[in-house]
Amino acid sequence: MNVEDLVKTSGEWLRGTGPESDIVISSRIRLARNLADYPFVNRADDSTRLEIVETLREPLTDVPVPSRMHYVRVDELEPIDRRLLVERQLISHEHAEMPGPRAVALSEHENVSLMVNEEDHLRIQVIHSGLALDECWEEINKIDDSIEEHVTYAFSDQLGYLTACPTNVGTGIRCSVMMHLPALSMTKEIQKVVNALHKINLAVRGLYGEGSQAMGDFYQISNQVTLGRSERSILSTLKDVVPSIIKYERRVRDALVKDNRDDLHDQIARAYGTLRSAQKISSEETMHLLSSVRMGVNLGLIDDLEIQTINELFIYTQPAHLQVLKHQTLSNSERNVVRAAFLRDRLSGRQNGS
Amino acid sequence: MNVEDLVKTSGEWLRGTGPESDIVISSRIRLARNLADYPFVNRADDSTRLEIVETLREPLTDVPVPSRMHYVRVDELEPIDRRLLVERQLISHEHAEMPGPRAVALSEHENVSLMVNEEDHLRIQVIHSGLALDECWEEINKIDDSIEEHVTYAFSDQLGYLTACPTNVGTGIRCSVMMHLPALSMTKEIQKVVNALHKINLAVRGLYGEGSQAMGDFYQISNQVTLGRSERSILSTLKDVVPSIIKYERRVRDALVKDNRDDLHDQIARAYGTLRSAQKISSEETMHLLSSVRMGVNLGLIDDLEIQTINELFIYTQPAHLQVLKHQTLSNSERNVVRAAFLRDRLSGRQNGS
Repeated sequence: MNVEDLVKTSGEWLRGTGPESDIVISSRIRLARNLADYPFVNRADDSTRLEIVETLREPLTDVPVPSRMHYVRVDELEPIDRRLLVERQLISHEHAEMPGPRAVALSEHENVSLMVNEEDHLRIQVIHSGLALDECWEEINKIDDSIEEHVTYAFSDQLGYLTACPTNVGTGIRCSVMMHLPALSMTKEIQKVVNALHKINLAVRGLYGEGSQAMGDFYQISNQVTLGRSERSILSTLKDVVPSIIKYERRVRDALVKDNRDDLHDQIARAYGTLRSAQKISSEETMHLLSSVRMGVNLGLIDDLEIQTINELFIYTQPAHLQVLKHQTLSNSERNVVRAAFLRDRLSGRQNGS
Repeated sequence: MNVEDLVKTSGEWLRGTGPESDIVISSRIRLARNLADYPFVNRADDSTRLEIVETLREPLTDVPVPSRMHYVRVDELEPIDRRLLVERQLISHEHAEMPGPRAVALSEHENVSLMVNEEDHLRIQVIHSGLALDECWEEINKIDDSIEEHVTYAFSDQLGYLTACPTNVGTGIRCSVMMHLPALSMTKEIQKVVNALHKINLAVRGLYGEGSQAMGDFYQISNQVTLGRSERSILSTLKDVVPSIIKYERRVRDALVKDNRDDLHDQIARAYGTLRSAQKISSEETMHLLSSVRMGVNLGLIDDLEIQTINELFIYTQPAHLQVLKHQTLSNSERNVVRAAFLRDRLSGRQNGS
């Protein structure tokens, strides 16, 4: 598989459909698993890591998913291609940067990605468009079971699944929902939400996981603790909380429209105008403006643009995507020019962006 | 004549042609004249002022110009229509606001406007597109002579033409050139130009004359003193100076393009984008953005827009024009919405702006 071919289509999770997809971009579940017969990754030397990569090759390419699985040796990729996988949310930043033999198994629709030798031997990830935690849960369970038919997981009757980091011990599950909350962000109400979520042990992160900024008003909400709680209980905490955040965001949007329609419309229209006109633009400004435009489409203030297009632009305007699309290495200021041209092109209706 | 019909076409001096019209919007000459048989306007009561208005009616409508002359009683106009004449540069702000019987004779092409009972009994004004002081001088001389066949001007062999304000005594002439100097403005070089012009007794004003701000990077350069100098000498001072300012502006534009093309192009493209997208916009921001766009057209960075369109937009986005176009009185915030709609409409290529 040529990783750079990924840019020809976008991941299915970006299609902008599914329940509550005006606010919930995607739902994701990942499971942390380790093989009983090998030391944890941080204790394994390169030859052991290589053995793990080879041991998992067949089990991971045979998992029951609708589209074909591809097994990619991440350590053999060019840095730009690793970065591309990060931008597409298929591998973590850590997985891209760490040393040693490692791999990822990807489904063609990009709903499923199975990282080998990240923090744990195996990270199983399923991602769906919109609020679809149950679908993720159903699919990831089948994948997990299918893999377990071939290998023996490190498991303790007392603790549950054993993982490299204690915070994952037990179920090894992390459920997360990526939400677009521009109204809560604009009115600073988001801080109340973050505080409330922290109290019930839910984490709030940016688009690219741990430590990343909430660029483009994207907030990833996930469970922090897995030990001592069942998967079902973790899942239902999130399923209880997310609808009330959606409701809160909608209420603030309605209030903004009601009290400040002209200002809001103006801000959104100018953002759209700038994205269609700029000759150079940073990634940060792009995210910021796309966020306004995305809300504008949802509120019916922009009517000539699909949510899927905007969702894709958030990903395609990232540095690695731009460079793969242009087939060349670009400096920061060159990227700003290419990014602006790409945005003008996509937003003027033509679909050939390079 | 219905003054509001003026908005159906734009003054010929806005057509954006003529020598150096990328930088010189228009050239204007005005002559201050008074009738020997009447006291100055500030000493004349209403019945005297009315007599002056009636005495000048025929001489002023009979002046030799290519298009028909209309004689308009300014004191009988609605405030909005007086304001419209100010925005079109056909009467002064003072003439619009002062009390008492007064009039203006207008040529249909709006090149010629003859104010009656402004500061002086008569202000003869001729305006042409581009750098065209000689054409103005030739035309205004004929008009002046034609009027003098009917009336006797207040004239002293020693002082020349007598005027209400001592600064106009002598020739009563003011020659001015309206220049668009965005590059000098952007780089703050304009201050050097202003200082140099003051030293040779040339005044620098904004779009609407005395005391007005240099909005939209427009600078009106004119002679200050008329006493003791011949018309020819005043004219030639201006004719000597203007080309060097044009050269300076062009040199700075070239340097901006050479050293900072991407930044400049980006700034201009964003300005254009905002004008085509905003849902509300102030007059000040409009002038500022139109100024960038105008320079962009001149530099070939925008290729789907005529200079005449931009020249007209500077005038048509003013408060009175918007209200006459919409046939209604509008508050400041309503105007901002109407202005934005008008700009979007005109700049998207359609020509029906209301």
